[in-house]
Amino acid sequence: MLMRQHKATEETIVAPATPQGKSALAMFRVSGPEAFSITSRCIKEKAIFSKTPARQIQLFIAIDPITKNVIDQITGIKYESPKSFTGENMVEIICHGGQQIIKEIFSALIKAGARTATGGEFTRRALLNGKISIMKAEAIRGLIESKSSTELKCARKMFKGTLPELERWRKEVMALLESVEAGIEFDETGKTEDFLRKGEKKIHTFLLHLTNDLKKREKIIIIGNGIRVVIAGPVNAGKSTLFNRMVGKKRSIVHSEPGTTRDVVSENLQLHGHEIQLFDSAGIRKTKHEIEREGIKISRQVIREAGIVIWVTAANEEMSKDECRELLSIAQNSIVICVINKTDITDSKEKEAFCLNAGIEKVSISLKEEDNKKMDYLLDQIYSKLEALLEETETPEMILNARHEEIGKALHKEILMAKKEWKRPEIAAFHLKKGLSLMEEFFGKVNSEEIINEIFRDFCIGK
Amino acid sequence: MLMRQHKATEETIVAPATPQGKSALAMFRVSGPEAFSITSRCIKEKAIFSKTPARQIQLFIAIDPITKNVIDQITGIKYESPKSFTGENMVEIICHGGQQIIKEIFSALIKAGARTATGGEFTRRALLNGKISIMKAEAIRGLIESKSSTELKCARKMFKGTLPELERWRKEVMALLESVEAGIEFDETGKTEDFLRKGEKKIHTFLLHLTNDLKKREKIIIIGNGIRVVIAGPVNAGKSTLFNRMVGKKRSIVHSEPGTTRDVVSENLQLHGHEIQLFDSAGIRKTKHEIEREGIKISRQVIREAGIVIWVTAANEEMSKDECRELLSIAQNSIVICVINKTDITDSKEKEAFCLNAGIEKVSISLKEEDNKKMDYLLDQIYSKLEALLEETETPEMILNARHEEIGKALHKEILMAKKEWKRPEIAAFHLKKGLSLMEEFFGKVNSEEIINEIFRDFCIGK
Repeated sequence: MLMRQHKATEETIVAPATPQGKSALAMFRVSGPEAFSITSRCIKEKAIFSKTPARQIQLFIAIDPITKNVIDQITGIKYESPKSFTGENMVEIICHGGQQIIKEIFSALIKAGARTATGGEFTRRALLNGKISIMKAEAIRGLIESKSSTELKCARKMFKGTLPELERWRKEVMALLESVEAGIEFDETGKTEDFLRKGEKKIHTFLLHLTNDLKKREKIIIIGNGIRVVIAGPVNAGKSTLFNRMVGKKRSIVHSEPGTTRDVVSENLQLHGHEIQLFDSAGIRKTKHEIEREGIKISRQVIREAGIVIWVTAANEEMSKDECRELLSIAQNSIVICVINKTDITDSKEKEAFCLNAGIEKVSISLKEEDNKKMDYLLDQIYSKLEALLEETETPEMILNARHEEIGKALHKEILMAKKEWKRPEIAAFHLKKGLSLMEEFFGKVNSEEIINEIFRDFCIGK
Repeated sequence: MLMRQHKATEETIVAPATPQGKSALAMFRVSGPEAFSITSRCIKEKAIFSKTPARQIQLFIAIDPITKNVIDQITGIKYESPKSFTGENMVEIICHGGQQIIKEIFSALIKAGARTATGGEFTRRALLNGKISIMKAEAIRGLIESKSSTELKCARKMFKGTLPELERWRKEVMALLESVEAGIEFDETGKTEDFLRKGEKKIHTFLLHLTNDLKKREKIIIIGNGIRVVIAGPVNAGKSTLFNRMVGKKRSIVHSEPGTTRDVVSENLQLHGHEIQLFDSAGIRKTKHEIEREGIKISRQVIREAGIVIWVTAANEEMSKDECRELLSIAQNSIVICVINKTDITDSKEKEAFCLNAGIEKVSISLKEEDNKKMDYLLDQIYSKLEALLEETETPEMILNARHEEIGKALHKEILMAKKEWKRPEIAAFHLKKGLSLMEEFFGKVNSEEIINEIFRDFCIGK
C-alpha cells in the first residue's frame, strides 16, 4: 500500500499550529528524528527537558540557540516515536501568543536546525508512516474546514477511517463480478438466468443507494453555502416588503403595481447566527408578458432549490385555485411558512383555515405596520424551521467530500452501464471492474501520488 | 496587600486561548472549582479523565454534555490547584482548529456549567490568588502585545516580577526621608549641613537615573512606531530622488529648481522586515522666503527626532562651511550615512575625504542612473545601521510600560521639587513622601481597584 512505500523524511519540521493574531497562547509543533535535540537547543533547562517523560507538560524558558537570549516562558510536551500524531518524535510548544514572541520562537527553532513545514506536512507524514489512512487525512482537513454542523458530521464520519457501507458494497460488487465472470462460461442454463435476475436486483439497489447518497451530498453543499429561504407567492401580496424588512434596508423595489419584481433578488444574512440566502421572487400568476413569464419560470426554479419557502399571500385577496395548487405542491417538497399579509385591511380567517387544513404553518401580519413584535415572531418561526431542517439533514454514508463526490459520480455511471448491459456479461463485467477500481480510490488504495497531492493541496500549515 | 484581599470567585470560567481563524489546532482554558467536573461532562472517557494524573496529556473524545454527540478528538491536560496558572483547578483542551469545532466545544463547556471568561480574567485570578504580582500581570500583557524586540525586552524584564533598580531607590528615598524628618529636629548643627549636602547629591543622582530611564522609554516608543529614517541635506542634492527610489514610486515632486520640497513628506516602509518611517525633508539653506524658512525649521525638528539621518549631498557642489557644521552636529547626535550623489557629473573624492576624516559612513552614487547594485548596497548600509540601532537600544530599568511612564513623570516632578526645596526640610519631606507613594504604585502596592482595572482593560480573552 502507498502509505508504507515511502520512508519518512530525515528532516525535522516545525510550524505554528495556531493562527496568526494576538492571543493568550500560541502553539508550535516540531516533528522528525531531531525533534528533541532541536527543541533542547532552544531551552534553558536542557537537563530537565531531557529527563521529562513523554506526554508530561513542563514549564521551560525558551532561549535563542545562538545568542542564548531569553525569549519566553513556555510549556513543552514530548511525544516519542511511534506514539505521536506523525509517528515520529514530536514536541508541542505552547508559548505566549504575542506576535514578536511567535516570530522569535519560530526563528529559534529554525536556527536550531528545523525546517519550516509545508501545508499539511504533519498529516502527510502521519499518512506515510501508516499512522492514519487517507480517509482520516481527509477527515482532519474536514474537521478544520467545516463551516456548518452538517459538514462537520461528514468529517467526523471519515475520522473513523472507514466507510462500512461502501466496504459492504465493494464486497457485493466483487462477488457479482466473480459470478458474472464465471457465468460467462456456463451460458444458457436455468441457473444463470436466476443468477442474472438476482444480480440485476442487487445492482439496482446499489444504484439507489448511490443516488441517495449523492443527493444528500448535494443538500449538504447547499446548506454549507447558506440555507436558501425563498419568499414566494402571488403578485402584489407584499413579498418585497417582507424581503426588505428582513434584510433591513430597501433592496427590492416596492410598488403597488402588481408584478414589480421580475428578477430574483437575493441577499445573504444571519438569522440568530445561521447563515441564510434570502431570495425575493417574482409573483406567480398567469401572464402574457414574456419577460414576466421568464421571471416566473426562474422563480419556480429557485423555489424548487429552496430549503424553506415563505409563501406571502394577501388577506384581502381570495385564494385562487391556482394558488391552492401551487402552495400545496410546494408544501409537499419543501418546508413552508404561509405569511398572511395585510391584516390591517381585513381579517385572515379564511386563509388561516386553509393552512390549518393543509397542515401548513401560518403567521398573520400586517407588514405595512411597523409591528416589531409580530415581525420577531415571524423570524422566530423561520428560525425554528431552519433548526429543524438542519436537524433532519442526513449525512451521506459514502460520499463525504468533494473528492468522494467526483468518484461517486463516475461510479454511478459505471454501475448504471453495468445494469444496462446486464444481458451482455462481458460488457457488464468490464463496467463492474471499472466500478470496483473506483471504489478502491475512495480508500486511497490506488497507488497515486496525485490523490495524495490533491488531498494536501491548500491544507493549512501546522497540520 | 491587594492581591490577597479578594477571594477567588466561585464561578468556573472558560475561553479560547488561541485566535480565531482556520488552523491545525485551537486551545481552550477552563479554570475554577468545577473545572474538572465541567470538563468531564464534555468527555466520553470520564473514568480515564478522572484517573489521568495532573500535567499528563491524554487523548479524549469531546462530546456535547446533553446530546452526547461526538464533537472532536481532543487532548486534555489537568492542573491541580494551586499548581496552575490561575492557582485554581484548570484544564487545557487542545482541539482541531476548525471554526465549527471551536464553536461546539465552547458551547459544550458552557452547557456543562462554565461561564465565558472576560478579557484577562485568567490573569486577574492568578493575581488575586497571589500566583503573580501586578508587575507580572503587566508583563504578560506586554509579552502578548509587543510588536518589536525592544518592547518585548521590557516585557521580559517585568516578567521577573521585580524592578531591582527601583527597589534600591525606594530604600534610598525612604532613608533620606527618615533623615530629613529627623533632621528637622536637630537643625543648625554641622552634622545637618553635611547630611543635607550628601542627601542633595543622592537626590540629584536619582533624578539623573529617572531622566535617563524616561529617555530610554521614549526611544522605545519611537522604535515601536517604526524607526525614523530622515533624508536631509542641502537643496537640490537629490534627496527627493532618493526618497522616491526607496519608496518605489513617485511621491515627492522631483524638480531641478532648488527648494522644491517644502513640506516634510513621509512614508512607512519595510526594509528587510524592519518597519521604518522614511522622511524626505526640505533642503537646508539660508533663505529669505518665509514659507521655505518654516519648512527648514520643521526639517531640523524631524532630523532631531531621527533614528538615522541620510545626508544627501551633490559631488559637483563644494561643501560649504554651513553644511560642514550642520553635518558634524547631526553626526554627534544621530547615526548618519552620507550619500554623495551625482557621481555621473564629477568624482566624489573631496567629499569622501571629508567623511573619512569625520568618521562618517559614506556611499557614492549617481541616483539619476538606474544602478540597482549601487542602490542595493546603499539599502544594505542603511539596514546595518538599523540593526546596530536596535542592538544598542537600551531597555529602561524602571519605566517599562505606559503606566510606568505616567507614574515616572509624576515621580520625576516630586523628586525635582524635593531637590529644589532641599533647604526647607518640611517641604522637601512632603515631596519625598509623595514620591515614595508613587514608587509603591509601580508595584501595585497601592490598594486601588482602579489600577487593576486599568491593567486589565483591553486585555485579550483567554489570558
